[in-house]
Amino acid sequence: MPTVTPGKVICAGLGPGDPDLMSVKSWRAIQGAKHVAYFRKEGRKGQARALVEGLLPAGVIEHAMEYPVTTEIHFSDPEYNRILAAFYDQWAETLAGIAKNDGDDVVVLCEGDPFFYGSYMHLYTRLQGRIAQEIIPGITGMSGCWTATGHPITWGDDVLTVAMATLSEDELTRRIAETDALVVMKIGRNLPKLRRALERANKLQDAWLVERGTMPSQSLKKLSELTGDVPYFSIVLVHGQGRRP
Amino acid sequence: MPTVTPGKVICAGLGPGDPDLMSVKSWRAIQGAKHVAYFRKEGRKGQARALVEGLLPAGVIEHAMEYPVTTEIHFSDPEYNRILAAFYDQWAETLAGIAKNDGDDVVVLCEGDPFFYGSYMHLYTRLQGRIAQEIIPGITGMSGCWTATGHPITWGDDVLTVAMATLSEDELTRRIAETDALVVMKIGRNLPKLRRALERANKLQDAWLVERGTMPSQSLKKLSELTGDVPYFSIVLVHGQGRRP
Repeated sequence: MPTVTPGKVICAGLGPGDPDLMSVKSWRAIQGAKHVAYFRKEGRKGQARALVEGLLPAGVIEHAMEYPVTTEIHFSDPEYNRILAAFYDQWAETLAGIAKNDGDDVVVLCEGDPFFYGSYMHLYTRLQGRIAQEIIPGITGMSGCWTATGHPITWGDDVLTVAMATLSEDELTRRIAETDALVVMKIGRNLPKLRRALERANKLQDAWLVERGTMPSQSLKKLSELTGDVPYFSIVLVHGQGRRP
Repeated sequence: MPTVTPGKVICAGLGPGDPDLMSVKSWRAIQGAKHVAYFRKEGRKGQARALVEGLLPAGVIEHAMEYPVTTEIHFSDPEYNRILAAFYDQWAETLAGIAKNDGDDVVVLCEGDPFFYGSYMHLYTRLQGRIAQEIIPGITGMSGCWTATGHPITWGDDVLTVAMATLSEDELTRRIAETDALVVMKIGRNLPKLRRALERANKLQDAWLVERGTMPSQSLKKLSELTGDVPYFSIVLVHGQGRRP
C-alpha cells in the first residue's frame, strides 16, 4: 500500500472586503490551492467565495459548507447548538479526510481575521490533534471600516472596546460610557437598542455606521442621521480622542 | 512654466512582522515606489525599514524620519509635546513638498495598521487639506500575536478590551476584571504594575506575553512563568472563552 504524506488545513484570512487587502501569504495559498472550502448560507454564493472571484486556479475543487437552516430556533435553545455542532463535526471530518487520505492541502477561505470572532474556530478546535493546521491572519473588518472613515480609531493611551450589539441595553450603555474608542458588531435588528445605549452614554452624535468598508459599495453614515434598517454585518464606530502632539 | 500634477502620500500598513503578511496592495505600492519614508530612532535601522528589506525597487529615494531624542524629558512635560510637534510639522512639510513640487508619490512605511495607534496619524492630520493621502490598512500587531498563540482571541459575544499598560494599576485592574478578552500594549517597565493588576483581577494564570509575533524570532510565554524584563513593544493577551457550539 502506498504511503500518503498527510496534507494540512490552511485557514486563509481574506481581510475586510477589497481583495487587494488580503495578505500576500493568503493570496499565494489561494492561487496554489487544489481544494478550497468556505462557509455560506444555503442559496447564496457566499461572501468569502465572492471575494476570491478570479483568483482561484483552474480545476480547483470547491467545498461549499452550507450552514444548516436554523431560523426557526433561537440561539439560546440547546437544539440550535446541537445542530450547529453536528454541522461543524461533519465538515471537520470531511476536511481531515481530504488532508489525511488524499494527502492534499485544503484552503479554507475566511473573511476578516480568522481568530477574531471567526467561524473557522469551530473547525479549528475539532481538527486539533487530528491534522496539521495553519492560520493566516487577515486585516479585520473593523480595521477596513475605521480606515474607510478617514479618521484614526485610537490615539496615545486610548482604551478600545469591541462589543457585540447582542448585549443588553444596560451593559452596552455602561461599556460605551467607559471607553475612549468603540467598535460594535452584529448590528442588524439590535440597532434601536444600540442607539438608545449610545444616547444614554452621550455618544450618539459621535457614532458612525459603516457597511462593507473597503468594498466598492461601501457606505458611511453618521448614526444620528440614519433612518431605516441596517445589515447584521455593519459596524458602528466611535473614534478615540487621545493625546496627539 | 510646466504644470506639475501633484502626487500623493500613501501610508502603507506593513502588518505584524512577517513580510508575507502585508497586503497585496501595500506590497505593490512599495515595489512601485520612487520615494519611501519611515520613522526610526536615531542610530537604528528602524523596524519598518527592516520589514521591506529586499522589496524596495532599485534607485528608490529613502527618507528616514528620525525621532528627536527626548529621553531626558517626560512625556507629560509640555516641552516633549512641543519638540514632537515640530518634528511632525517639518516632515509633513517635506513630504507635501515632494508630492506637490515634484509630482511624485511618497510611500510611508508603517508597521501594523496605520489608524490603530500608529505614528503616521500625526502626519495625516497635518497633511489633510494640503495634499491627497491614501491609507492602506494592515494586519495589527495584536492579531499577529493572538494568531501566534494558536488560540482564538474572541468567541461568540465576547467583549474585547485593548488597553495600554501606561494606565494606573487601579484602572488596569478594573478593566481587566470587566472584560472577556484582553490585549495590553506598551508593556516594558510597566510590567510589574500590569502583573499586579492581572493578579488582582484573578487573570494572571490566563495571561500570555508575546514578543515579535509572526517573526522568526517570536517568543510566547505564560506571563506567570516569566522572569526578567520585556520590551516595550511586546503584547499581553488573555483569550476570551465565549459561546462555542
